[in-house]
Amino acid sequence: MQTITKILVANRGEIALRIIRACKELGITSVAMFSEVDAEGIWVRKADEAYPILGNALQAYLDYDRIISLAKKAGCDAIHPGYGFLSENAEFADACTRAGIIFIGPKAEHIMLFGDKTASKAAMKAIGVPVIEGTQTAITDKKEGARVAAEIGFPVIIKAAFGGGGRGMRIVRKEKEFDELFDSATNEAKKFFGKGDVFIEKYVENPRHIEVQIIADKYGNVVHLGERDCSIQRRHQKVIEIAPSPRLNDAVRKEIFRISTKAMFRLGYESVGTIEFLVDEADTVFFIEMNTRVQVEHPVTELISGIDIIQRMIEIAAGDKLRFLQEEIIFRGYAIEFRINAEDPQKQFFPSCGKITNYMAPGGPGVRLDTSLYAGYVIPPDYDSMIGKLIIWSLDWEGAVRKARRALDEFYIDGLPTNIPLHKAIVRDQDFIDGRFTTAYLDEKLDKFNLDAINCIKKEEERMDQINKLIGTIKQNNLSIRH
Amino acid sequence: MQTITKILVANRGEIALRIIRACKELGITSVAMFSEVDAEGIWVRKADEAYPILGNALQAYLDYDRIISLAKKAGCDAIHPGYGFLSENAEFADACTRAGIIFIGPKAEHIMLFGDKTASKAAMKAIGVPVIEGTQTAITDKKEGARVAAEIGFPVIIKAAFGGGGRGMRIVRKEKEFDELFDSATNEAKKFFGKGDVFIEKYVENPRHIEVQIIADKYGNVVHLGERDCSIQRRHQKVIEIAPSPRLNDAVRKEIFRISTKAMFRLGYESVGTIEFLVDEADTVFFIEMNTRVQVEHPVTELISGIDIIQRMIEIAAGDKLRFLQEEIIFRGYAIEFRINAEDPQKQFFPSCGKITNYMAPGGPGVRLDTSLYAGYVIPPDYDSMIGKLIIWSLDWEGAVRKARRALDEFYIDGLPTNIPLHKAIVRDQDFIDGRFTTAYLDEKLDKFNLDAINCIKKEEERMDQINKLIGTIKQNNLSIRH
Repeated sequence: MQTITKILVANRGEIALRIIRACKELGITSVAMFSEVDAEGIWVRKADEAYPILGNALQAYLDYDRIISLAKKAGCDAIHPGYGFLSENAEFADACTRAGIIFIGPKAEHIMLFGDKTASKAAMKAIGVPVIEGTQTAITDKKEGARVAAEIGFPVIIKAAFGGGGRGMRIVRKEKEFDELFDSATNEAKKFFGKGDVFIEKYVENPRHIEVQIIADKYGNVVHLGERDCSIQRRHQKVIEIAPSPRLNDAVRKEIFRISTKAMFRLGYESVGTIEFLVDEADTVFFIEMNTRVQVEHPVTELISGIDIIQRMIEIAAGDKLRFLQEEIIFRGYAIEFRINAEDPQKQFFPSCGKITNYMAPGGPGVRLDTSLYAGYVIPPDYDSMIGKLIIWSLDWEGAVRKARRALDEFYIDGLPTNIPLHKAIVRDQDFIDGRFTTAYLDEKLDKFNLDAINCIKKEEERMDQINKLIGTIKQNNLSIRH
Repeated sequence: MQTITKILVANRGEIALRIIRACKELGITSVAMFSEVDAEGIWVRKADEAYPILGNALQAYLDYDRIISLAKKAGCDAIHPGYGFLSENAEFADACTRAGIIFIGPKAEHIMLFGDKTASKAAMKAIGVPVIEGTQTAITDKKEGARVAAEIGFPVIIKAAFGGGGRGMRIVRKEKEFDELFDSATNEAKKFFGKGDVFIEKYVENPRHIEVQIIADKYGNVVHLGERDCSIQRRHQKVIEIAPSPRLNDAVRKEIFRISTKAMFRLGYESVGTIEFLVDEADTVFFIEMNTRVQVEHPVTELISGIDIIQRMIEIAAGDKLRFLQEEIIFRGYAIEFRINAEDPQKQFFPSCGKITNYMAPGGPGVRLDTSLYAGYVIPPDYDSMIGKLIIWSLDWEGAVRKARRALDEFYIDGLPTNIPLHKAIVRDQDFIDGRFTTAYLDEKLDKFNLDAINCIKKEEERMDQINKLIGTIKQNNLSIRH
């Protein structure tokens, strides 16, 4: 068994800090790296050692030759990639291994498999996991299209093979509409992308995005840590994540746990991973993809299971056996994660950056904050807009929603716009309170939420003015009493 | 059934904020009050309404006529007293009731009973709770003293009836030593306090301070929320509190749960309360006192039980039935609370005050922070030195200790000395790590811890210097690269 004594954290921001915290708790030396614009990042100060890495702001965290060479120079025996950047790069994982450094994550072969959407679907289907049926290669022939569509079963979606942004995309609900919609899709595809080739696949109506957290060691022990509901998305970007899903049918829950753990066992998967499903209105389940890394939303699972996912991920990479059996994992309560983004919901979510002039973090019972923010920190414009995560836990769903409202109201970031007002609007929405949301929820309600958010900002400003006036008056009075 | 819609929070600092948070989560309007020096307190801004209260800094929070009149003017139907100040004042509780305002706490009769140490011991003894045996009234006669001592059983402690600070105090381990030690105690008492009267009671060797959290509704439903180990004290002031106790014999645990719930049921107690015991080396249990209010250390119990004690306390005062049965309460993991005090461990714990110039709070998994601190806040010199509570949770004791180290290392308060370096020294002590501590622990090791703390402060300063130099060099280099 190898041991890990020193880890290079090949990431930045909140996840770098998260990994450093795990290292400290495990008694492992942590090494931070930082680009030229990240010298003031708090994770640089919290790590046991820190080194600059050359290259421009983004390139620094992607240059894997330099990163591996830094790891070797610093005497690290392992690298944790976090999420994003090099976390799902099979070549990087391989390069680490060749350099004699433990890559804290799954085997390169599994990263590669799940990096290929078509191959991974085929592999999962072969194991018996239900996938979204569709054409494996692009087609141009209408008759072939009609045959495929009938085979898959309506509704289907026709998607331009070389396109995006909804162009050359048509949803076909009935067989008799197929020909007309196929023509208009291929014509639009030709017009916008030069080629009329399309894919056809099963269309899932109003789905929920449900994912299963898996953790597996090198010895074939695979357990799940429950599911997360990540349906609340803006343009396919997760915004709020919840564990467990507040309205998931228990039979469906058991089934996705069963197929996920079975598939990972069959594949010989190790480390942590997330298997993502769509669940339609009829509770039919479709595998969409697997993420072979730790996810942004892992804290909600930590809060309901009590298990530290990052610590266990490191131990598994060092060759430790899983510490627990499936039946020893007890889920309790509900957790909700709010991604705090430096962006302006009032301006089409345009990314914001700049200096945090005032900062008040929420606290008290059931509040977890994962962030590298602090008063005086200047957010660089070079990276993803997510600047922190507020995670709430309560014994019941209603309590979690109420606590979320309270904690979001306490969260005060001055100096740049954030999406906190949007979150405040969402947690006051009756559908959210009732746990009724699909992946369409946020995009559909966004205009309403933005109006609510403007009102919320105004009310907050008025309240602050009132309090400041009151306190001003009192100070004046005290002064005059004292004189 | 009465309902509560608006609560006056008759307290300040972290507990005021804690109660306001509970109100917000219950949808109850919160009203803060503040003395002339507390206008900048964060709880003043976080409450729905806030009013100044006349009187000097301390008197403001004790003047119960003014407080009740404010509650009535503001339209509050209830008052939460927090801890300290008016929380264990039976007259205040009575005055609230007479004014038609719900006092959120136990009945006045129970506050009065447990405010009287002798009467409460007698009452608990009558119910079958083991108490520390001793003389009920002061004695002067040596022969009577010897008789009483023999009856109680050695070791006994002789204490000056009109004294304190260890003067006129003698521990008698054997019968044959009694006469001589009685003489020296009474002589010393005469010399220092003018009177030689003494009490004699059972002396408990190296005890642990173990307390049971009780919660009871108006309908006779009484449950316990487990025990807390508060042995780590400096001069009888709790410094660190732990739930559950890491080395308590399970039979003892069950027994104190049984006698505590039974006693509260017999007395018809309602609201929350804490029954405090000493447990000696032979696992013998002695009731010492009961606190008829919410305690500073309630968060450790919240973390292991998942139950929000303040919210449930408010519901009970409104006439709600308990939400849970004893068998539905499931304890998980270990929680440790560190009281953060504005005091200088290097200067005999002299209270410190002043402006917080820099502030970095710990965060991430398993970290709860209850505090009203923020960067720029000026700590007034008028109140108790406790300025916040850091509470840690982990699935196991070892994990909790490691997490405590990590979180304390992250906690950075600049501008005035605090006891954080003392906590850092404690969590690195092998006896603490092994869960071996009695009420004598901290006083015995204080000199060693203070030395460790000085080293810890020095090391931290050196580290900060190094990092600042490194970052300075990098910035210089980047500038020159760019030019």
